[in-house]
Amino acid sequence: MSETTSPLSEGELALFDKWWAAANYLSVAQIYLLDNPLLREKLTLEHTKPRLLGHWGTTPGLNFLYLHLNRIIRRDKSSVLFVAGPGHGAPGVVASTYLEGTYSEYFPEITQDAAGLKKLVRQFSFPGGIPSHAAATTPGSIHEGGELGYSLSHSFGAAFDNPDLTIACVVGDGEAETGPLATSWHGNKFLNPVADGAVLPILHLNGYKIANPTVLARIPTEELLALFRGYGYAPILVEGHEPDLMHQKMAAAMDTAFAAIAAIRRAAREEGSTERPTWPMIILRSPKGWTGPKTVDGLRTEGYWRSHQVPFSDLTKPGHLALLEEWLRSYHPESLFDENGTLLPEIRALAPAGHLRMSDNPHANGGILRRPLRLPDLAPHAIALSAPGAVTGEATRVLGEWLRDVMTANQDQRNFRVWSPDENNSNRLNALLDVTDRQWEAERFDYDDHLAPEGRVMEILSEHTCQGWLEGYLLTGRHGFFSCYEAFVHIVDSMVNQHSKWLKEANETPWRRSISSMNYLLTSHVWRQDHNGFSHQDPGFIDHVVNKRADVARVYLPPDANTLLCVARHCLESWDRINVIVAGKQPEWQWLDMDAAIRHCAQGIGIWEWASNDRDGGPDVVMACAGDVPTMETLAAVSLLRRHVPELKIRVVNVVDLLTLQAKEQHPHGLDEATFEMIFTKDRPVIFAFHGYPQLIHQLIYRRSNCRNFHVHGFREEGTTTTPFDMTVRNHLSRYHLALNVFRRVPSMAAKAAYATQAIQDRLVEHRLYVREHGQDMPEIRNWKWETP
Amino acid sequence: MSETTSPLSEGELALFDKWWAAANYLSVAQIYLLDNPLLREKLTLEHTKPRLLGHWGTTPGLNFLYLHLNRIIRRDKSSVLFVAGPGHGAPGVVASTYLEGTYSEYFPEITQDAAGLKKLVRQFSFPGGIPSHAAATTPGSIHEGGELGYSLSHSFGAAFDNPDLTIACVVGDGEAETGPLATSWHGNKFLNPVADGAVLPILHLNGYKIANPTVLARIPTEELLALFRGYGYAPILVEGHEPDLMHQKMAAAMDTAFAAIAAIRRAAREEGSTERPTWPMIILRSPKGWTGPKTVDGLRTEGYWRSHQVPFSDLTKPGHLALLEEWLRSYHPESLFDENGTLLPEIRALAPAGHLRMSDNPHANGGILRRPLRLPDLAPHAIALSAPGAVTGEATRVLGEWLRDVMTANQDQRNFRVWSPDENNSNRLNALLDVTDRQWEAERFDYDDHLAPEGRVMEILSEHTCQGWLEGYLLTGRHGFFSCYEAFVHIVDSMVNQHSKWLKEANETPWRRSISSMNYLLTSHVWRQDHNGFSHQDPGFIDHVVNKRADVARVYLPPDANTLLCVARHCLESWDRINVIVAGKQPEWQWLDMDAAIRHCAQGIGIWEWASNDRDGGPDVVMACAGDVPTMETLAAVSLLRRHVPELKIRVVNVVDLLTLQAKEQHPHGLDEATFEMIFTKDRPVIFAFHGYPQLIHQLIYRRSNCRNFHVHGFREEGTTTTPFDMTVRNHLSRYHLALNVFRRVPSMAAKAAYATQAIQDRLVEHRLYVREHGQDMPEIRNWKWETP
Repeated sequence: MSETTSPLSEGELALFDKWWAAANYLSVAQIYLLDNPLLREKLTLEHTKPRLLGHWGTTPGLNFLYLHLNRIIRRDKSSVLFVAGPGHGAPGVVASTYLEGTYSEYFPEITQDAAGLKKLVRQFSFPGGIPSHAAATTPGSIHEGGELGYSLSHSFGAAFDNPDLTIACVVGDGEAETGPLATSWHGNKFLNPVADGAVLPILHLNGYKIANPTVLARIPTEELLALFRGYGYAPILVEGHEPDLMHQKMAAAMDTAFAAIAAIRRAAREEGSTERPTWPMIILRSPKGWTGPKTVDGLRTEGYWRSHQVPFSDLTKPGHLALLEEWLRSYHPESLFDENGTLLPEIRALAPAGHLRMSDNPHANGGILRRPLRLPDLAPHAIALSAPGAVTGEATRVLGEWLRDVMTANQDQRNFRVWSPDENNSNRLNALLDVTDRQWEAERFDYDDHLAPEGRVMEILSEHTCQGWLEGYLLTGRHGFFSCYEAFVHIVDSMVNQHSKWLKEANETPWRRSISSMNYLLTSHVWRQDHNGFSHQDPGFIDHVVNKRADVARVYLPPDANTLLCVARHCLESWDRINVIVAGKQPEWQWLDMDAAIRHCAQGIGIWEWASNDRDGGPDVVMACAGDVPTMETLAAVSLLRRHVPELKIRVVNVVDLLTLQAKEQHPHGLDEATFEMIFTKDRPVIFAFHGYPQLIHQLIYRRSNCRNFHVHGFREEGTTTTPFDMTVRNHLSRYHLALNVFRRVPSMAAKAAYATQAIQDRLVEHRLYVREHGQDMPEIRNWKWETP
Repeated sequence: MSETTSPLSEGELALFDKWWAAANYLSVAQIYLLDNPLLREKLTLEHTKPRLLGHWGTTPGLNFLYLHLNRIIRRDKSSVLFVAGPGHGAPGVVASTYLEGTYSEYFPEITQDAAGLKKLVRQFSFPGGIPSHAAATTPGSIHEGGELGYSLSHSFGAAFDNPDLTIACVVGDGEAETGPLATSWHGNKFLNPVADGAVLPILHLNGYKIANPTVLARIPTEELLALFRGYGYAPILVEGHEPDLMHQKMAAAMDTAFAAIAAIRRAAREEGSTERPTWPMIILRSPKGWTGPKTVDGLRTEGYWRSHQVPFSDLTKPGHLALLEEWLRSYHPESLFDENGTLLPEIRALAPAGHLRMSDNPHANGGILRRPLRLPDLAPHAIALSAPGAVTGEATRVLGEWLRDVMTANQDQRNFRVWSPDENNSNRLNALLDVTDRQWEAERFDYDDHLAPEGRVMEILSEHTCQGWLEGYLLTGRHGFFSCYEAFVHIVDSMVNQHSKWLKEANETPWRRSISSMNYLLTSHVWRQDHNGFSHQDPGFIDHVVNKRADVARVYLPPDANTLLCVARHCLESWDRINVIVAGKQPEWQWLDMDAAIRHCAQGIGIWEWASNDRDGGPDVVMACAGDVPTMETLAAVSLLRRHVPELKIRVVNVVDLLTLQAKEQHPHGLDEATFEMIFTKDRPVIFAFHGYPQLIHQLIYRRSNCRNFHVHGFREEGTTTTPFDMTVRNHLSRYHLALNVFRRVPSMAAKAAYATQAIQDRLVEHRLYVREHGQDMPEIRNWKWETP
């Protein structure tokens, strides 16, 4: 880019400055004003908000970029999505969106006149109003600016399979310091220039965070450019503070960037280039709080961290009210809005029309574009079994084969991808690679394994990036599936919080349409981490998700392959949820044929009559289980007990849908109390073998009348590199521990208890010695098989 | 670096190759062998492990680097710490550590002979043995390789305030894709070459993860070098696969790197340079599974992802056992170990001696070096109050003033730093900057605010980096304090898991000494996020921590400034814990003078007699609270109730130490049942106002006899940008909701309930209208003040 280019005519320049002034004016007005939005009266304290809450610093830069993107959109009629990474850009994004007219279309009470302006400025950071960052309530947004780090991965996610879309992603230099953002630049090694859209990252280097400079603003320019060249981009630097010069420079930079994008598309789509493109990016180095007060009370403010939030917030201080009025009037509102308070038409004309407005891009309200996934029949994948426990199967491998068919059925819709942090095959979803590849735009060699520029399996060793890509993909109306090691999905805990909050707010925003659910398969789970040991053993993600809102959170623990298929199908059909499925990948006994699985999953919980012997009257004990390994241990305990104490009446209950346990008034899946009592009895002991931390069950059932009789076995944070059965022993989840607890809790067993307890404790000692000696479980454990007594 | 340099003589080269062969041999042996560790018999299936669990891929590279670092250490007598980032480096690290003799010193049963070797190889990935990654049980390690992403931030953390230490940090190219790792390269903008140690990052570019190539291995070299130059390093590339050449290249690279480090130190320490140094880094591009089988069953294995784990694991397959034997014999064990199975002395001589061995560096067992923090008196900071609720105070600001004194008292020990993600001042800990600065090694300007090359306030906008630095600092025997917005501390959930697991394993490792606790102050909490709204409102981190082991997890909710001081002092005195303190930063009423605060915090829970009126006999209702805002709302509800229904006997209970609620057998701080009943009664309703998610209280108390009578108010995931009181209204935690619940739960109130309920509901409507109209809380709320009835 040549610095001397002046793409804008004098007339355009003047208009550009007016638009920018209007957007900046409305931004300041939103932060400060309750009334007098056009400053037609002298400003008084009564016109200002009693509590000044908002962020000015990043806003003028966002307004500047929005305006310049609009120029390209008008010229090229191109579909562009605006992602505002800087945390607190709402005053700017909302102002620009209002100037485009969209805001009034989405919120008809915010009219394009003085009355609408009054409502617009009042609602900002005001009770019942809107927050200080772009959010679900902001037209055109797919990205909430609250927690930082995800703007660029959201943008890449939106770009996949949207070949005509360009995402202009503004990355704040504060956000750029976060880990998730720092690695998300590598998205360019996965983006296919033929079948995917483009991402134009714009690093907004305004130099400061809340109270500190930013790292990237304090390194030599040469280093800065090297960094982005190293990330694989062609950086275009726009630097300065004089508006006229900056308008020309930014216009030229946008010309360069969009020309580069067009050239890359042409080369890849028309000329057959297969080189990984060097996509453009823009670095905008401009003052924080640009056009705001240079100093406040003699202290440096523009171009400094003092502009981050409200540059001066005690308006009763001498001179402050006048300073605010002077600042607002510096934008000359009287020259921007007509008598009615409507933006002058020649300024408004700088915005594109209709869906070309970034604030009205349909991709930003992805539910509009969402087509349901075609879900093939489960039957061909069902594991056939003559009786419970008759055969073994690898649950996730079976699922992988069905997912392969899902992939095939939707190939032409191009709206389904599968994510994992380099674990697709480790998680046994290999079959997917029969019909698609791993998308890979970096160097390839002929011996590579299913790497291709186009593919629907997305793998990068960054849970954050997988999650961010998938969120962007879902928010723009597509479908996805994320498989992850159970322990390490905690890496995205905080992203899940933010996504769940987005779903809540989107549901409360009438014009937002439903999007596909976020679907997790957690495998390589705590009970089968033989390879890795303690660091890989943590079942707490379900605790985390259960704290999310009841209308969003779902947790499924299918005990075998057929139930996993049913649950997965249900999740892929659903919308606006966070669905967590936990299932093992190792060969395990299978319990339910497909018909039984469908019935069981439809209820979410059920008595397994075939394993129970309490038909005549109530049981002495309920043996409940949730999760594949706990189910096996429970059944092994049951067969032990039924062999040794056949008079003991045992009821076996299996829980697939964990939230059936919660009270009906707490969760829509919660059983009513009568059904809960019918299943778990009113007063019998319940020995509950649970996949996760035992206290979660207690948390879910505290309102149940029989809750004091639940004795839960689960992960006690005892882990190591050892055998599968030894893990259950160390955590007191083993068949032996379950059986021992039955003896302890069933009063009628008292006579038998002493003898049986000793016998079982002997088995435990024997186990311990055997495992240490042989490095594997005893044959009686390895060869155990359910036999209906 | 010139590629033609040959720093090693022929003799050295031969010996280097032998050490490397010995380390590689022992690595393979650990993965495969149960017996016959020196291969003195023909290999049979009985000599091999029944379950082959381990990772070979990264190991030869780690062994190679370890050896070459030792050469520099011997020559320079320098103190070097080895951090193995690659997830599964244990076979290599353990082998090298054994060859140095350290392993036998720490684990005397693993002797330096054939018997010891047999135990060494057997214990690896074997029940009761050691995991597949460097861990707390590995001498010389401060870093567990399980979850990836933190090696480099751990290394910088270890380097702060250790001017004579160099941390050689091997970063795997898989790990390099994670977000936390991608931003941790920026640690060089914070490291002071005068007062801190050096970090030498070594990117191990072996090209593959579990089943995919790595991103950084598939970009042009030019881009790769630009990236690291952009990160501010001087990269040295060592590339190839022929051992002799690679030994010479690596020796030359190490010479260059350590000479550069020495030159940087000299310039900064002797010549007064104040430029940010361009630290060296090494990129080792070598084949994955280097020296392993080229192919297995005709499939590419060396230099491919098939080497990641166990390159072939079914030894019963034709030819596999022979392949293993051939592979093992390729290292010529007979030429490495003497008749007794002891490493030949001329090979052993390549290791340094004593504490110069990286595996015996005292910094890696930081508890050895840990000096207690000098903790100044709290008294000068105590807020004086004539009566409960007589004055207001900003709790975290008061804490900041005491922390300033802690900082001063320990300046000469140089062993205390305070971390935050750009929130130190936002969290009101400003006073710290009176006595120290923010450490900042990037560009500075004269108008900067407390930025200096040396400083003890560490701020980068990356919770991951803050956490990683702090972990590295604590693990090497120092003290720290981390203040963070409550909602965003979830970003480090998974790191907290890993640190808690480390603490457990370290406690079970006899030679590991205790380290200082990880101390969190969570502020800008859910109830006072007026600026930011819903995205910043999440109190779930305490739920996450409570799932950790009882001997590690502690959660404190001080209700005011004096209790916050007491709690913070206790946390800074403690060791081996994860302490979470939640406290607000806004001006709030103060309840306890310092004497009362000390007594209250010592108990962790207590009846507030001054607010109760149940002295004559038992209460009708217990009003319990935990957290500053819930405490205020509870007291406001109590004063409302005592004014309107003076005959109602109310007991007020405040909980500071949350885990007192848990049963004594579940947590060491848990109250015994008698005391719990004395406080909460056996059968009275308990209206509990809680800072976090209500279900957490139910989870903690499920074993308590009165648990069914607890009615908990807390965060119901209803948030927005609104007033403080409105947040409590939306979540049913307000004084009005608490009072309404008392009417509902106390049977004797039935007569009064209808009238009072209506009156209170009117107040709620009035509140709602007022807030929407005025944007702030009603005067009766803003001006509320406790008056002892």
